[in-house]
Amino acid sequence: GEIFDKESYQDNSVAGVVTGLAWTSFGGEILHIETSLSRGKGKLTLSGQLGDVMKESAMTALSYLKSKADKLGIDYRIFDTYDLHIHVPAGAVPKDGPSAGITMLTAMASIFTQRKVKAKIAMTGEITLRGKVMPVGGIKEKILAARRAGLKEIILCQKNARDIEEIDEEYLKGIQFHFVDKVEEVLNIALLKTKVEDPMHFVFPAESTKKEG
Amino acid sequence: GEIFDKESYQDNSVAGVVTGLAWTSFGGEILHIETSLSRGKGKLTLSGQLGDVMKESAMTALSYLKSKADKLGIDYRIFDTYDLHIHVPAGAVPKDGPSAGITMLTAMASIFTQRKVKAKIAMTGEITLRGKVMPVGGIKEKILAARRAGLKEIILCQKNARDIEEIDEEYLKGIQFHFVDKVEEVLNIALLKTKVEDPMHFVFPAESTKKEG
Amino acid sequence: GEIFDKESYQDNSVAGVVTGLAWTSFGGEILHIETSLSRGKGKLTLSGQLGDVMKESAMTALSYLKSKADKLGIDYRIFDTYDLHIHVPAGAVPKDGPSAGITMLTAMASIFTQRKVKAKIAMTGEITLRGKVMPVGGIKEKILAARRAGLKEIILCQKNARDIEEIDEEYLKGIQFHFVDKVEEVLNIALLKTKVEDPMHFVFPAESTKKEG
Amino acid sequence: GEIFDKESYQDNSVAGVVTGLAWTSFGGEILHIETSLSRGKGKLTLSGQLGDVMKESAMTALSYLKSKADKLGIDYRIFDTYDLHIHVPAGAVPKDGPSAGITMLTAMASIFTQRKVKAKIAMTGEITLRGKVMPVGGIKEKILAARRAGLKEIILCQKNARDIEEIDEEYLKGIQFHFVDKVEEVLNIALLKTKVEDPMHFVFPAESTKKEG
Amino acid sequence: GEIFDKESYQDNSVAGVVTGLAWTSFGGEILHIETSLSRGKGKLTLSGQLGDVMKESAMTALSYLKSKADKLGIDYRIFDTYDLHIHVPAGAVPKDGPSAGITMLTAMASIFTQRKVKAKIAMTGEITLRGKVMPVGGIKEKILAARRAGLKEIILCQKNARDIEEIDEEYLKGIQFHFVDKVEEVLNIALLKTKVEDPMHFVFPAESTKKEG
Amino acid sequence: GEIFDKESYQDNSVAGVVTGLAWTSFGGEILHIETSLSRGKGKLTLSGQLGDVMKESAMTALSYLKSKADKLGIDYRIFDTYDLHIHVPAGAVPKDGPSAGITMLTAMASIFTQRKVKAKIAMTGEITLRGKVMPVGGIKEKILAARRAGLKEIILCQKNARDIEEIDEEYLKGIQFHFVDKVEEVLNIALLKTKVEDPMHFVFPAESTKKEG
Ligand SMILES: [Ca+2]
Ligand SMILES: [Ca+2]
Ligand SMILES: [Ca+2]
Ligand SMILES: [Ca+2]
Ligand SMILES: [Ca+2]
Ligand SMILES: [Ca+2]
Ligand SMILES: [Ca+2]
Ligand SMILES: [Ca+2]
Ligand SMILES: [Ca+2]
Ligand SMILES: [Ca+2]
Ligand SMILES: [Ca+2]
Ligand SMILES: [Ca+2]
Repeated sequence: GEIFDKESYQDNSVAGVVTGLAWTSFGGEILHIETSLSRGKGKLTLSGQLGDVMKESAMTALSYLKSKADKLGIDYRIFDTYDLHIHVPAGAVPKDGPSAGITMLTAMASIFTQRKVKAKIAMTGEITLRGKVMPVGGIKEKILAARRAGLKEIILCQKNARDIEEIDEEYLKGIQFHFVDKVEEVLNIALLKTKVEDPMHFVFPAESTKKEG
Repeated sequence: GEIFDKESYQDNSVAGVVTGLAWTSFGGEILHIETSLSRGKGKLTLSGQLGDVMKESAMTALSYLKSKADKLGIDYRIFDTYDLHIHVPAGAVPKDGPSAGITMLTAMASIFTQRKVKAKIAMTGEITLRGKVMPVGGIKEKILAARRAGLKEIILCQKNARDIEEIDEEYLKGIQFHFVDKVEEVLNIALLKTKVEDPMHFVFPAESTKKEG
Repeated sequence: GEIFDKESYQDNSVAGVVTGLAWTSFGGEILHIETSLSRGKGKLTLSGQLGDVMKESAMTALSYLKSKADKLGIDYRIFDTYDLHIHVPAGAVPKDGPSAGITMLTAMASIFTQRKVKAKIAMTGEITLRGKVMPVGGIKEKILAARRAGLKEIILCQKNARDIEEIDEEYLKGIQFHFVDKVEEVLNIALLKTKVEDPMHFVFPAESTKKEG
Repeated sequence: GEIFDKESYQDNSVAGVVTGLAWTSFGGEILHIETSLSRGKGKLTLSGQLGDVMKESAMTALSYLKSKADKLGIDYRIFDTYDLHIHVPAGAVPKDGPSAGITMLTAMASIFTQRKVKAKIAMTGEITLRGKVMPVGGIKEKILAARRAGLKEIILCQKNARDIEEIDEEYLKGIQFHFVDKVEEVLNIALLKTKVEDPMHFVFPAESTKKEG
Repeated sequence: GEIFDKESYQDNSVAGVVTGLAWTSFGGEILHIETSLSRGKGKLTLSGQLGDVMKESAMTALSYLKSKADKLGIDYRIFDTYDLHIHVPAGAVPKDGPSAGITMLTAMASIFTQRKVKAKIAMTGEITLRGKVMPVGGIKEKILAARRAGLKEIILCQKNARDIEEIDEEYLKGIQFHFVDKVEEVLNIALLKTKVEDPMHFVFPAESTKKEG
Repeated sequence: GEIFDKESYQDNSVAGVVTGLAWTSFGGEILHIETSLSRGKGKLTLSGQLGDVMKESAMTALSYLKSKADKLGIDYRIFDTYDLHIHVPAGAVPKDGPSAGITMLTAMASIFTQRKVKAKIAMTGEITLRGKVMPVGGIKEKILAARRAGLKEIILCQKNARDIEEIDEEYLKGIQFHFVDKVEEVLNIALLKTKVEDPMHFVFPAESTKKEG
């Protein structure tokens, strides 16, 4: 059969791109959550033919990050003065479900902090508004897809650990698993302390700084 | 059979998370209403695949809290200068109906006041705009679900008391029931006087304070 | 059969709650129009699964009150600086039709003026934008429902008088009927001159008072 | 059969109410276009279950009046600082079609100028944006309805004159017909020079007057 | 058969009205694009039951005119401080397709410049955003309709010239054809240099003139 | 058969028009992406009966350009103070899919920078938000269409190179292929360094320049 296209996972030299794992009736697949920021008024744009549940995941991830901005070292003014776009290629393929929650959240956290995403890591898990990580389906197929793409670490919900136990060990070789309960753990594992090489320099309108009383 | 996952109810160390009771054709279930506030312009975001009736419940709860802000010790400026997000996991499961009314209202009251929610308490009941609590269905199934989750107190509408009388006593052991007519009673029972450990510190734009005449 | 729940009609100690009469294929029913005001920007929120016609009734009632604000002693600035929410329990039951027109208008007039609503009164009738009261159907069933709920006075359109004549007198005992042509008459009958005990104190932004030229 | 309810046409003591003629599969009917103005921001509200075509008629009538404001003696600031509501009873009956065009336009012109509408006059005709009057259908049925309601004058498009010629003369007795090509003619016939007894006193924000350069 | 109603084409004494040619399964027809401007905030209103494609044509025509405002002698501030309404009678007849593109563009150019439209001219052709004129269908039927209406000149896309060659010459007598590739040619032919007799006098808010840097 | 209409491809004397390649069940076709800018508030208008996926492509291209504005020499204020319209003729033909991504991005880059587009070049390829170029289908048919239109250079995704290898060499004669992985490569190939002859002169409101702190 055809060798999987090695270069298809993104390098981590830019902020805001994170690898997720999806599951269709044809098997597992990797997908890339891409984010970008541009000066604006806090608008959120979602593209890639995302369904309702996936759009709500993105909104939930954004609310989580806003409510934790101080702890995460994000200047709150970014949310008001930049527009955030989240795109999931391929653009014509409909996508839905909550399992990209932690992936979208990590991609947003990376673009807002300009911190590097760890190389060769993928993740799958639902998030809640208060930062819990919830289990998702299709674990076996997702892991096979991650292996084919040459990924080395995978973040899963603690409650998905039982799904791993049922997989033949030879398929797990060479992959390190992280089982987590909370979004903070995901960010600690997946976001490096270092910023990307050419980080964005955020600019804020003068009046905005005076407004806080 | 499988032991119910004990840790599935939320701890009460954070404000704005309250346990409700839902009822599906598969039996009763507990659900968690999660809320979060972030600086903004008073926008309300609802997620978790909520239906029309449940969305209207949330809007009604918010209007109630706004009209009672002074009595409840809520600084009115929060409503204009913060965005409120309400999420109900699991994100992919459609949910509807008015029975989460008192749960959503209590969660909002907790996030706005930063008061702790009582531990191991759950509730189910419709609200009206003027603060009445109305009876809901599926009481028996909901109580069984609450027991399985280790909950110790349940708030119900006074008119649901008759539903309790028809349940075999052994299923009621170890649970304290509160029968209420008004939303004020719910808040008095479910919200502790103490604030959460690390409460949000609300910040308001300078000009907003001058505006009142 | 079961005795009708006496406490189900609202007491009149708060402003903005008025009893209407609805008619379904199961017979007549009383319903409560609840209103609340909270500081805002003049937004109108409607909840209770209201249909298009009923929503238009609410908008028409509001326009009527705005155009008659001076005569009714309503400070016009309320319309710009408060949000109005109208809710009709039960929240999950779809409701439609124009017959709650005078009920919604009276509830709004009460909340805007903080005048008490007469006790034990109910009403049913369509309104027009210029304040005419129009006849509605289901009069017999509605009256029976009002009696069961212990109501003592009913406001109807003058043109519904003929419907009363066809009802057996024993069902009319103990109820006083008011037949009206105009909305002013409804308000004169249903709104007391006294304010509710703990009336809202409306607050307006300073700049708004200067703006009028 | 039943005598038509004589009082059903509106008196002309208030501005902004004009009688139109509609045509359904059950025959002709009179309808009343009601308008009201309240201080606001230039919003247009339409109610009475109006269809797309009828809504576009209203928008077209409003644009016509705005573009002719000076000639008609309408203070342009009304359009920016008042909200216009147009309602067509009965509120639950769906209505559509372009034939109420001249009626809606006349009602709006009356409310904006506070000029009295001629008594016992009705009209039916489509309008265009540049003020042409276009012929409509159902003329015979509409005239019979107008007679039953005791109306004395009817405005029609010049091109509908041929429809009148085909009606038996006895049905035309006592009705004066006005055949017109242009909206100006409609307004000249239907709007009296005198204002209504208790005209609205329009109030404008101070800054608005300074803004014109 | 019936003689075609001669007065049905608009005279050219007002700006902003242009005659187009439409094609239905019943044959060709003339239609009138009417435009009007009123002080506002740059809103575009479309009426006459226009379909998606025809609405996009209008938007494309407007964008073209905005991007060529200087060349066409249009004061750009009109686009921000006036509302444009485009109406196509008859109001109840659904219309769609791109062939009214040049007609709508010419009508808009006339109202913005207040230049007279040439008398007895009609046109049909799609436009692109960059001002190309594209061929359309139904040419023969459209020309017959134009003749019946007494029109003397017709503007068509150069690529529609071949359609003319296939029409029997007797039907072309008395009509002058203009074949064009670009919108500029259309405007040069159809818009006279002279303004209409009683042109609009555009008024701009004072602050707007200062804003340009 | 009919010789393909040579003049149908756009000349490159204006900025913002780029030739793409589409693929339908009838074979390949060339299409033109047209863009225009006019003073406004940053609104994006899309026309030409574009489907959801193609609209998302346009939004993704715009976000990419905003996030790379500095590198591309685009004054960021254009995005806030000009409106962008993208139109794809023919206006009545529904179009969808992601393959016009690089074409739309190049057209926007040209209009924002006023740089000339290379003559006789076409392109087809999906874009991602971070500037990757992704392969698309219908390559053979698209190339035949490009040849018929007299185009000399074609930009494709590197991963579409294999599709070229399977095409008979005689169909490739006279066409230069560019295989790319990234959007930067597309812009380097397709956008000339020189500006168009009569470039737009962008004008910004005075206050906007002071706002940056
Ligand atoms: Ca859905
Ligand atoms: Ca995933
Ligand atoms: Ca629904
Ligand atoms: Ca509940
Ligand atoms: Ca409806
Ligand atoms: Ca009622
Ligand atoms: Ca329609
Ligand atoms: Ca009419
Ligand atoms: Ca369509
Ligand atoms: Ca045309
Ligand atoms: Ca779609
Ligand atoms: Ca393409």
